[in-house]
Amino acid sequence: MTTKQYQKRPTSEEAIKELKNLLGERFSTEVGDLKKHGNDKSHLPAFDPDGVAYPESTEEVAEVMKICKKYKVVVIPYGVGSSLEGHTSALFGGIHVDTSHMKKVIRFSKPDMDITVEAGLLKTELEKWLKEKDCFFGVDPGSESTVGGWCATGASGTMTVKYGTLRDNVLNLTVVLEDGRILKTANRARKSSSGYDLTHLFMGSEGTLGIITEITLKVYQIPKAVSAGSCCFPTVRNCTEAVTEIVQSSLGSLARCEFLNVKAIQAVNKLFETDYTEKPSLFLEFHGNTIEQVESVKDKLAEIVNNHKAEGFQFTSDEEKRKIMWKCRHSAYYASIKLRPKSKLLVTDVCVPISNLPNIIVETEEDFVKEGLSCPIVGHVYDGNFHVMCPIYDEEEVIIERLNSRLVKRAIKYEGTCSGEHGVGYGKMDYALQEHGEVFMDISKQIKKAFDPENRLNPGKIFN
Amino acid sequence: MTTKQYQKRPTSEEAIKELKNLLGERFSTEVGDLKKHGNDKSHLPAFDPDGVAYPESTEEVAEVMKICKKYKVVVIPYGVGSSLEGHTSALFGGIHVDTSHMKKVIRFSKPDMDITVEAGLLKTELEKWLKEKDCFFGVDPGSESTVGGWCATGASGTMTVKYGTLRDNVLNLTVVLEDGRILKTANRARKSSSGYDLTHLFMGSEGTLGIITEITLKVYQIPKAVSAGSCCFPTVRNCTEAVTEIVQSSLGSLARCEFLNVKAIQAVNKLFETDYTEKPSLFLEFHGNTIEQVESVKDKLAEIVNNHKAEGFQFTSDEEKRKIMWKCRHSAYYASIKLRPKSKLLVTDVCVPISNLPNIIVETEEDFVKEGLSCPIVGHVYDGNFHVMCPIYDEEEVIIERLNSRLVKRAIKYEGTCSGEHGVGYGKMDYALQEHGEVFMDISKQIKKAFDPENRLNPGKIFN
Repeated sequence: MTTKQYQKRPTSEEAIKELKNLLGERFSTEVGDLKKHGNDKSHLPAFDPDGVAYPESTEEVAEVMKICKKYKVVVIPYGVGSSLEGHTSALFGGIHVDTSHMKKVIRFSKPDMDITVEAGLLKTELEKWLKEKDCFFGVDPGSESTVGGWCATGASGTMTVKYGTLRDNVLNLTVVLEDGRILKTANRARKSSSGYDLTHLFMGSEGTLGIITEITLKVYQIPKAVSAGSCCFPTVRNCTEAVTEIVQSSLGSLARCEFLNVKAIQAVNKLFETDYTEKPSLFLEFHGNTIEQVESVKDKLAEIVNNHKAEGFQFTSDEEKRKIMWKCRHSAYYASIKLRPKSKLLVTDVCVPISNLPNIIVETEEDFVKEGLSCPIVGHVYDGNFHVMCPIYDEEEVIIERLNSRLVKRAIKYEGTCSGEHGVGYGKMDYALQEHGEVFMDISKQIKKAFDPENRLNPGKIFN
Repeated sequence: MTTKQYQKRPTSEEAIKELKNLLGERFSTEVGDLKKHGNDKSHLPAFDPDGVAYPESTEEVAEVMKICKKYKVVVIPYGVGSSLEGHTSALFGGIHVDTSHMKKVIRFSKPDMDITVEAGLLKTELEKWLKEKDCFFGVDPGSESTVGGWCATGASGTMTVKYGTLRDNVLNLTVVLEDGRILKTANRARKSSSGYDLTHLFMGSEGTLGIITEITLKVYQIPKAVSAGSCCFPTVRNCTEAVTEIVQSSLGSLARCEFLNVKAIQAVNKLFETDYTEKPSLFLEFHGNTIEQVESVKDKLAEIVNNHKAEGFQFTSDEEKRKIMWKCRHSAYYASIKLRPKSKLLVTDVCVPISNLPNIIVETEEDFVKEGLSCPIVGHVYDGNFHVMCPIYDEEEVIIERLNSRLVKRAIKYEGTCSGEHGVGYGKMDYALQEHGEVFMDISKQIKKAFDPENRLNPGKIFN
């Protein structure tokens, strides 16, 4: 991959001075800090910012934005840099607004089952806080990341089957606009038809329209009963066809339905010394109010998977076994890297209508094998979303780009999307254009201009 | 209510000639037709358009839009005129694009449980079509209306509890932009994080950003088992507090949870000669795969409502009894008008967080009684959404406006919205501004300008 050249838009000395005046030590130009912020978890090259601001409140973000407007400084919001398509890279320089000092829980209502938090709160921190209230956040994004990052990316997770995506679980955002004005996109009502849906417009806007600082999320009671099932199949086609039948059977309590191909199972077995049968597999989970309820699906589920030649069907309410299974699934990223020492990981992320899932996964596996690469594939397959985890060395990058390009073409052919949950960043701009076409991109640019006339908010992301 | 004066933006003779050339008899300037299109189901004054176009396809809508651009003609999309806030009123003149010739089912996939239809398809037509495939559309908006109208308004319905609002059930829209370009907002994947969420931006945009011509909806299998429950309570507070406890108990199979106050029950009893006890009541419905599943909630539900002094708790899987109950609930609009011969109906529509529902309903009933009016109240109370159905005579309009204004203030105080599902139109513009404030409205106008620089798409709606 040849690295594109970007014309830097330098951050002036006066701007830096004024930001230091505002934030003191919470504005950093220390080289180590800049280096850390230039990188994310993608395979893409790093671009360091000129400075990093660590505001402590929405109001302080607003003050930062006003200074940046005054000096025409480029601004990029930053959570923990867990993005996979270069979302936070400072392609043109500018400053990062790092939300790691914004972790407050602002309010919570158990009767209303909603919580308002600051953007920098981490997944593990939110989980811990909610657990004490016997609640949890249903979406369960895969990696350690911030609530603000989830919203900016339009993320989802393993439990989308039952609880929806991030987009379905945000009631209200507080956003700082490019000129420092503070916008509330909605209120706490569960639904509204009053005015434009600005909440969803910001979800997945990747910092290009404003900086999300506070988020009101729907939360859920921890299910009183949970059971889990797993099985494997002779072929990927058997496995994915079983999934399409599971989807059509609308098993009400299904909360997770995850696919792992042979290579993914091998990677997991290697990392954790587990002994999962090395065949295409499904990991499933059911949530309900009573054990009877979650176990009532067992026979129907067994019938479906057995129709598709399932092997080793297991069904358990044992918490320890479940925990191990999900630890394995959630560690697929690291397990994949461990397959090839010192490799870096490229993670693909397409999503197609469920009826096209068997074809696209089979064709993708074949395509990778043809190019001499055999990679782990995992997927939130109930949604038709899956990831090829490609641990690669530099010299293989060109092959993987070719494979990913063909994968995206295949997803578009199958009426799907080039990004199910990781966003566009600058890694997938060409694919997003292929998927949506010129009219979509043109109107998107018009919207961008309405919010950010000077193109200072995370420029060079989503579209050129 | 004093009628505001609007400066007409006349539709030129050349424009009308060219539209007639394009559509022949499907472009009407017949007075009866214009009169019919000037009115909706609201209490607001009528504003007739200068002409009505009846295109037969997205491409024909695009041709109409090009002509309108050429001659700077105002354009307003029109379904069946069922809106309740004057959404389709031609305040400034211009033409209606009536979608009643666009009713095709374009595609359907049972494995993917989705359907693509043209905007003019009616609720009853969609229901009939889907029933033959053993499917239904989960949202169930209350009145006869078009799929395009649902989307443009951001509607919802009685089954939002289980199946979500319209916003949760649309995968993709085809929209004709102000210059005649055709935009597809997404594809058929169940989720995506590729690019701005234009689908949701158009949901509830009330024709101000473009004309929705085709819609891909999620559909659902007709539940194999359905049961229904009903009971009444000594007071509104008992009843609504029972609702908040039902919400918190997350009864998985709950699909409907509807409130009717004493006056609403009286109106229904009068219209249908039913004998529901004339007390604040709940009508509930449960959907599942088996009778055992839907009946398994009975004891828990009885326990909850009995905690709140319920009377006459009934629970049945009998289809006939259910049908009568929902016919009564769905006819509340007509039943309310029938209470006062020759009255017209004003329907309020606020939505608040569920914990604030008991207070707001009690206070609202008291406020109405104070003004000498006692009106039916019905609500999709699981969402915190309710409607006062006010059958009024002209001279009472000023009282009702006062009551509605106080109701909206109350909803905003309780962190709710001025419109749960009916939209803003021109009837609620002041309330939307009160709810959202200047920054929200200012950025909304910037978006509007990006889509519609000449302000020709349904001008004077949502904001001035």
